[in-house]
Amino acid sequence: MGHDMLMVGVDGGGTATRAVLTTRDGSGIGYGVAGRGNPISAGVEQAIDAVREAVRAAVASSGRAMSDVSVIVACLAGQTASGAGAELLRVRLGEDGFSGTLGFESDLLATYFSGTAADSGYAVVSGTGACAIRVEGGRIVATADGLGWLLGDRGSGYWIGQRVAKAVIRDLDDAGPATGLTPLLLEAVGIDPFGIRSPGAEGRPVALEQLVAALYARAPIVLSSFAPLAFRSVDDPVAADILRRAGEHLADSLVAVLADRGPLVIGGGVLSRPGPVRAAFHRRLGDGAVREVVPVDDGAVGAGLLAMRAGGCPIAQDRLGRLAETVAHVRRSLVHDPPPRASGAIL
Amino acid sequence: MGHDMLMVGVDGGGTATRAVLTTRDGSGIGYGVAGRGNPISAGVEQAIDAVREAVRAAVASSGRAMSDVSVIVACLAGQTASGAGAELLRVRLGEDGFSGTLGFESDLLATYFSGTAADSGYAVVSGTGACAIRVEGGRIVATADGLGWLLGDRGSGYWIGQRVAKAVIRDLDDAGPATGLTPLLLEAVGIDPFGIRSPGAEGRPVALEQLVAALYARAPIVLSSFAPLAFRSVDDPVAADILRRAGEHLADSLVAVLADRGPLVIGGGVLSRPGPVRAAFHRRLGDGAVREVVPVDDGAVGAGLLAMRAGGCPIAQDRLGRLAETVAHVRRSLVHDPPPRASGAIL
Repeated sequence: MGHDMLMVGVDGGGTATRAVLTTRDGSGIGYGVAGRGNPISAGVEQAIDAVREAVRAAVASSGRAMSDVSVIVACLAGQTASGAGAELLRVRLGEDGFSGTLGFESDLLATYFSGTAADSGYAVVSGTGACAIRVEGGRIVATADGLGWLLGDRGSGYWIGQRVAKAVIRDLDDAGPATGLTPLLLEAVGIDPFGIRSPGAEGRPVALEQLVAALYARAPIVLSSFAPLAFRSVDDPVAADILRRAGEHLADSLVAVLADRGPLVIGGGVLSRPGPVRAAFHRRLGDGAVREVVPVDDGAVGAGLLAMRAGGCPIAQDRLGRLAETVAHVRRSLVHDPPPRASGAIL
Repeated sequence: MGHDMLMVGVDGGGTATRAVLTTRDGSGIGYGVAGRGNPISAGVEQAIDAVREAVRAAVASSGRAMSDVSVIVACLAGQTASGAGAELLRVRLGEDGFSGTLGFESDLLATYFSGTAADSGYAVVSGTGACAIRVEGGRIVATADGLGWLLGDRGSGYWIGQRVAKAVIRDLDDAGPATGLTPLLLEAVGIDPFGIRSPGAEGRPVALEQLVAALYARAPIVLSSFAPLAFRSVDDPVAADILRRAGEHLADSLVAVLADRGPLVIGGGVLSRPGPVRAAFHRRLGDGAVREVVPVDDGAVGAGLLAMRAGGCPIAQDRLGRLAETVAHVRRSLVHDPPPRASGAIL
């Protein structure tokens, strides 16, 4: 043991953090999962904990030791090597027995390299948040949106979920069209849909007051959990309109960073499947703007490639292929991380 | 002492809570102020504390005792007599020596009756939040918007402040027009505007990253504190457009509840002064929709009238006039509550 160089790439996502342990030749030999790892939405401390836990799990799953790892690259939203959490993560990983090199990359770049080894191209990621990037020379050179739920993320799961909530409120308030989203949302938040039009105080139905109170009792970002209600209601005109506008917003974000033709990697559940969002996205984008479209489940494989790059192994298509295949194999052998699509979750 | 019936009306506002102590004939003989009293934005516990403190201050300012008070009416957003906080407030006021009747009304109705004694009419309130109501027979019978910062409040101080932030982000990101709001907002959040275009990571200027981080470090509702930047920039096309749209949203909310002609009471700082919001509001509304427009500073006097009504004294124009005059007199005598306009705050 310990005779070859091992590297770990970590993709800190909004709902889960994934770590890939790889050899120099691009064989994924370990894999680990932990909780929320986005320093912006989950907080720096929680993201650091998730990175540590995922790394330890990946190393443990391979039967190797932390001291065998020479490079760790953490792909985290907004985190830089000089950021607040960088030194803390270094210390914590040191406590776990790691004495190698720690690097940082963007989680968006990890998503990009999960789908292509091309050193120039694009990624559009729409999960809980939404962002478009242009990659040149293996680095992000332009970014559109990705501004978070409060200031942007147009076309994201949050954006869709918030529009679902607003559409249902307008329906209940007689201020907008009736929609099949209304009984679905009321059920989702635990409000009895029986007699939803019965009048309450101040000229509004009881269900409206209950819904507004229920939504404010949750964290704002939880609105993203209502996006699947729109995907379940594509025949409903109100839901279809929300999904169409989401696709258009995502296309607009991509257009804002477009230059030369290149591959487009699609991350996150909103755009990953055929349907109204994807159709509106391509309609708005037009033909010829991108060379190929590659959907990916997450940024785990790309994080592994970025760790290999940091360890001196340039990113190349054959390495991506080998890593993706071996990681998929290791992943299937671990019961605690079912493939994202099978779970029915879209985010 | 204690030979006549005293009543206290309390207006729980988003930034301050005001209590008026009145006699049966409508003479304001006591006045008290406390902190945030909106149970939805400040939380039920904090609102209850603010109501208690304002009531105690009002009673103390008159030299009377809590046991002399026979009726208290708390005008609070979303609070009903059967609501979670009602029993707790009853218990707390009992501990303070109150053994009379406690009633609840909407804070919006308190604003309405601060401006008119007419039993039918309208109020549009736009401060931190935004709402329109129709009053008939002295009760609120229809409400538009008032859905809070996350789900509505279009045309509110929060709405304006969020648009200011988004416009500045678009400017810094080269995704929208340049605006004079940019240096104002950067200064307001403590970012050095020197070299604001200098490039940072991922193809974006350093100032953009700093601004986004600074905004997420604050509570979302704090965005409302940037609304005054738009009011200071009425000659800037971007700011003027935001203010115009705010006025139109407020007019749309009023139109949604309009029926017969009636007086219109205007509460909150966004619409209270002449300027682009007010102009757009009236342009959108058209002539003849409302009978007269009465701006009010807050809901204190109306809360006092509602307390009198609960004590058996019907609301009438002469009582409103007397109460407004005497409350203004008591208020001027208290150094701790300068008139809202003089402070320069708009919310």
